[in-house]
Amino acid sequence: MKPLRSFASDNNAGVHPEILKAIALVNEGHVVGYGADPYTALMVNTFREHFGAEAEIFPVFNGTGANCLCLQALTKSYHAVICAASAHIYTDECGAPEKFTGCKLIPLQTSDGKLTVEMVRHAYHGIGDEHHVQPKIISITQATEMGTIYQPGEIRALAHFAHERDMYVHLDGARIANAAAALGQTLRQATRDLGVDVLSFGGTKNGIMGGEAVVFFQPQMAADFLFLRKQSMQLASKMRFISAQLATLLTNDLWLANAQHSNRMAQLLESELRRIPGVKIHYHVEANGVFANIPREAIARIQDRYFFYVWNEEESLVRWMCSFDTTEEDVREFARFVTDVVGER
Amino acid sequence: MKPLRSFASDNNAGVHPEILKAIALVNEGHVVGYGADPYTALMVNTFREHFGAEAEIFPVFNGTGANCLCLQALTKSYHAVICAASAHIYTDECGAPEKFTGCKLIPLQTSDGKLTVEMVRHAYHGIGDEHHVQPKIISITQATEMGTIYQPGEIRALAHFAHERDMYVHLDGARIANAAAALGQTLRQATRDLGVDVLSFGGTKNGIMGGEAVVFFQPQMAADFLFLRKQSMQLASKMRFISAQLATLLTNDLWLANAQHSNRMAQLLESELRRIPGVKIHYHVEANGVFANIPREAIARIQDRYFFYVWNEEESLVRWMCSFDTTEEDVREFARFVTDVVGER
Amino acid sequence: MKPLRSFASDNNAGVHPEILKAIALVNEGHVVGYGADPYTALMVNTFREHFGAEAEIFPVFNGTGANCLCLQALTKSYHAVICAASAHIYTDECGAPEKFTGCKLIPLQTSDGKLTVEMVRHAYHGIGDEHHVQPKIISITQATEMGTIYQPGEIRALAHFAHERDMYVHLDGARIANAAAALGQTLRQATRDLGVDVLSFGGTKNGIMGGEAVVFFQPQMAADFLFLRKQSMQLASKMRFISAQLATLLTNDLWLANAQHSNRMAQLLESELRRIPGVKIHYHVEANGVFANIPREAIARIQDRYFFYVWNEEESLVRWMCSFDTTEEDVREFARFVTDVVGER
Amino acid sequence: MKPLRSFASDNNAGVHPEILKAIALVNEGHVVGYGADPYTALMVNTFREHFGAEAEIFPVFNGTGANCLCLQALTKSYHAVICAASAHIYTDECGAPEKFTGCKLIPLQTSDGKLTVEMVRHAYHGIGDEHHVQPKIISITQATEMGTIYQPGEIRALAHFAHERDMYVHLDGARIANAAAALGQTLRQATRDLGVDVLSFGGTKNGIMGGEAVVFFQPQMAADFLFLRKQSMQLASKMRFISAQLATLLTNDLWLANAQHSNRMAQLLESELRRIPGVKIHYHVEANGVFANIPREAIARIQDRYFFYVWNEEESLVRWMCSFDTTEEDVREFARFVTDVVGER
Repeated sequence: MKPLRSFASDNNAGVHPEILKAIALVNEGHVVGYGADPYTALMVNTFREHFGAEAEIFPVFNGTGANCLCLQALTKSYHAVICAASAHIYTDECGAPEKFTGCKLIPLQTSDGKLTVEMVRHAYHGIGDEHHVQPKIISITQATEMGTIYQPGEIRALAHFAHERDMYVHLDGARIANAAAALGQTLRQATRDLGVDVLSFGGTKNGIMGGEAVVFFQPQMAADFLFLRKQSMQLASKMRFISAQLATLLTNDLWLANAQHSNRMAQLLESELRRIPGVKIHYHVEANGVFANIPREAIARIQDRYFFYVWNEEESLVRWMCSFDTTEEDVREFARFVTDVVGER
Repeated sequence: MKPLRSFASDNNAGVHPEILKAIALVNEGHVVGYGADPYTALMVNTFREHFGAEAEIFPVFNGTGANCLCLQALTKSYHAVICAASAHIYTDECGAPEKFTGCKLIPLQTSDGKLTVEMVRHAYHGIGDEHHVQPKIISITQATEMGTIYQPGEIRALAHFAHERDMYVHLDGARIANAAAALGQTLRQATRDLGVDVLSFGGTKNGIMGGEAVVFFQPQMAADFLFLRKQSMQLASKMRFISAQLATLLTNDLWLANAQHSNRMAQLLESELRRIPGVKIHYHVEANGVFANIPREAIARIQDRYFFYVWNEEESLVRWMCSFDTTEEDVREFARFVTDVVGER
Repeated sequence: MKPLRSFASDNNAGVHPEILKAIALVNEGHVVGYGADPYTALMVNTFREHFGAEAEIFPVFNGTGANCLCLQALTKSYHAVICAASAHIYTDECGAPEKFTGCKLIPLQTSDGKLTVEMVRHAYHGIGDEHHVQPKIISITQATEMGTIYQPGEIRALAHFAHERDMYVHLDGARIANAAAALGQTLRQATRDLGVDVLSFGGTKNGIMGGEAVVFFQPQMAADFLFLRKQSMQLASKMRFISAQLATLLTNDLWLANAQHSNRMAQLLESELRRIPGVKIHYHVEANGVFANIPREAIARIQDRYFFYVWNEEESLVRWMCSFDTTEEDVREFARFVTDVVGER
Repeated sequence: MKPLRSFASDNNAGVHPEILKAIALVNEGHVVGYGADPYTALMVNTFREHFGAEAEIFPVFNGTGANCLCLQALTKSYHAVICAASAHIYTDECGAPEKFTGCKLIPLQTSDGKLTVEMVRHAYHGIGDEHHVQPKIISITQATEMGTIYQPGEIRALAHFAHERDMYVHLDGARIANAAAALGQTLRQATRDLGVDVLSFGGTKNGIMGGEAVVFFQPQMAADFLFLRKQSMQLASKMRFISAQLATLLTNDLWLANAQHSNRMAQLLESELRRIPGVKIHYHVEANGVFANIPREAIARIQDRYFFYVWNEEESLVRWMCSFDTTEEDVREFARFVTDVVGER
């Protein structure tokens, strides 16, 4: 029998019991659709307790929707978005940002998924030249797609660079909870206080069923966002059920507990894997993902039991993610299996 | 205290208990994301039992997403979509179809939300002329936005007209269940067997939490749909939870029971309202919606207690929808209240 | 032998000799491309003498380009453009406005191609409702596609309506010269002074080889137009040759002479046609076009000698346009031929 | 007094006298607009003499239009276009390809503007994965933006790679004449015979006033191109004047004479510049452009007299282009001036 839980992705996990309970709880009578319901109002208040009273919060369906809408809200079609070549918006959204915003994404090569001011400065040119797209957004992912984490000063420096040039900072926060947990920050300290302008707040990878939120830290940025969300097919009619999930995640620090747990499981996994000769931890394990170079011939044999993604075929680099529901036993059993497979070569 | 249930929209209702149960049931362990999970496979099989083995089924988040994707899959940007001026795609999606497909929508005035071959023939011109958009899709809504229903022969005639001209028929089936129930058709009889090429299958308005399905009746139409869905921000990562809802809806005729119930409630509402002098039923009540002209000054006073939408300000025409969870007592209480308000004038 | 000149369209004519001369004149040495040349600067000055010092002028390639760019400059994708159903942007640009701006065009039925405030008021609704596109532009054509002309007060009233609601007025001026000539207005009186915000200034139909201009009457509207023009594939590298044409057209009242002449020829044509039993002038002949209902069986026989367009098949309504180079003899010969054909029935 | 001719760009030149003559020649009477005229038919025949009878030829306004339309004709929005990071479509079209096609452009770093099969193979991945855009076109520029030239075998290899994978090859031929001339190829040998599927044929940089052509080498690719051209705002009404230019360019080998001349002038310029200490020729001079590293402080002083573009600020790399009308005396005078300025440091 296959194991109940894998390490393929934090979105392969199910839903936290508190979230399911919250959904059932709001399933009572009729409420107005499309977000004009009391549960959504409550959720907005909860988010504002975390992010500040001026924050504007808009539930959407998924991460790609959140990202594209963040970009759309702050750009015109001749603008460009500077991002890491490994960014989800560049690599994993099937061109949705380009299709939806018309903008060019400018991919920068990084060693660890993190942009630096120096890289961005290099890509910032052609300003005022009608033949060139005009950089308008620096988009970063925190925690990154490689499981690494920007230090606060690094984001602050990027935001400073951006704001000096009338640009904005977008943060793809599919795993912002993991980053904040790892750094001991509040959600606000991890985003708004560093100069982030707009946030894709991720819930799905942190234990909810489905739902993200677009969070603007300056209200005027959201002036016409209702229209953009609707036009982009991201307006839920029975929004109360997404709002309830998001609100619950930000209540009683559930977001933090889930993130701390998955981070801890990743550390455990790392330490278990480090004992295996032939397995090499590739990136710093700072959030809930472990990237490792493993013997090429081991891949298929491990996948036979545990589904997971090969991150880079050429380098035989694989990705293993921990989730809110990963147990210590899951980790140890998996590490034992990897040990066996790699040892048997 | 306000009443628990209103008549504003069938999406103001909550979730059917069977659906909630199904969600909880699939919340077990890890499964692969993005639809490669066993619950989605099961759902596809269930749909094929209804629609035939060749049908291709793709869950998406919402009705606007389903509609736009149906259109996108079968058009190029210089094509046009012929639809009723009252169609949801034309009137209520904030221009999403145009933005997303690039196509022009050609709105036809109707008296009851239903296209006829004659109307469509009139709009079908400029063929082969590079200055004109080229009609490619006839999009109909069943049941219509006015609560009326196409008779089978009417859809068959439109499909015949379309197919003779290398065009397709799209059916916006946000309330296809209500129509099929009213006509005593199976879902297949109500769609594919009439010549419909692609269906937006609606679940949200018929008792599920959130989720629709794009259903192609010819597999080759779906050849590259996975890419379109992802690029259009409509791919759910934890898809099992949408699939489970859709599958449950199509199991044990839950779709039918829900639709029959809401239709019956609408008939009850109609008969109650007909007794009120000053209230005039406007469209034939054929599905789960009742449209009525009421005294202008009564609107605000009824809305004070029951939220609902004014359909046409100038004609003082309002819309009242019944849901899977509307009770006879809800209807009678509401009718009494309307009687009181209108009588008091 | 076929006649040298037809009445199919004012763009079937060639180039005025003065324009050809101007092109040859600027063909001297190298100048910087993309509009940073002295001839373009000169053209801008010439336009400002007509339209005022604050006007911003941008040459583009063609009328569809001018129209789409005017709309794009003043809209976001969830906006709508209100126009006549007969408007070139709605009917004759193969959906370019929708594809390029993402906006919906709202077509209004008119009897003569002219919008009225009353019509527009009827179409102006759903404001602030996220499900509806938001009207942002009223687009009018002067002279209209039917050869009729808005009176100054009519445009002023539309502009007043628009500006009170934070909307703009776009004027498709493919034949603005004909309208201004007919009304005895200067170009400024015909546009800016009536409240028009942005103008597609037409040159091609008034005797130049190819080229139109986007003219903004408020400089801030043009702030980022250079990027939009380039991104929309409408930036000419050897722009001097378009600029020279436009400048020449606005020098020594060549625009006026050409327009007055073609208007006069249309009047002559009308009076000749009025003598023919079986030919019925359909719209008021106010600019350079004559629309006539003619016997159905005469169409092909006249087309056999003179190429022209049938405007409305069902009504057997045809369009005949006069050009800057149409001669009195052309008109009389054509009228004689029509007389013969129609008489022979 | 400034010199009559500069070395900034081959589009800073004017129009070849033969071209002007051809324009005047077709300015006779009325002809049907939008390409249904005899001069366009003639032009198509002329092109087919060069490219073969099956070629489909469509005049458009400019290079950006030609490129975007070539890409649009062969892609869906989830496709990707692989190109050099220095490609005009990637760098100099203000994001028009992304805006217009919705596709992602995948930029590959090259040392000389030329793609290799090895580079493309590296970028060809994620095939069949819905999260990734799907490579559909390899776009190359011949001669490249760096003035270098693909050898026939190099293009053939790229085409082979592409066609094996159901991809297409687009050739941006803004300077295809210069490349063919340099290689001693016919236009067909330089394009179609190497496996190119669609060509942006450039005229403007080779002595015409304005106009390019989209050339398909397989007729079925052009099946609906008329609609795409119109919708993309690239359909000229008085097309005869563009067609006459293109036809003349391909008659009596004017294209070849012009290209050979500008190539020769570039070789002369190179040999003159090689004598100047402090000036370093950067790329192989294979077509009509010379790229040189010059002392940083010389740039502004030379620009004071001769306008030109700095190609790479950091490397103090400048671009000098020769045109059909560049004279030997122009080159020598320019070289003397550069010598003086650089010597004076």
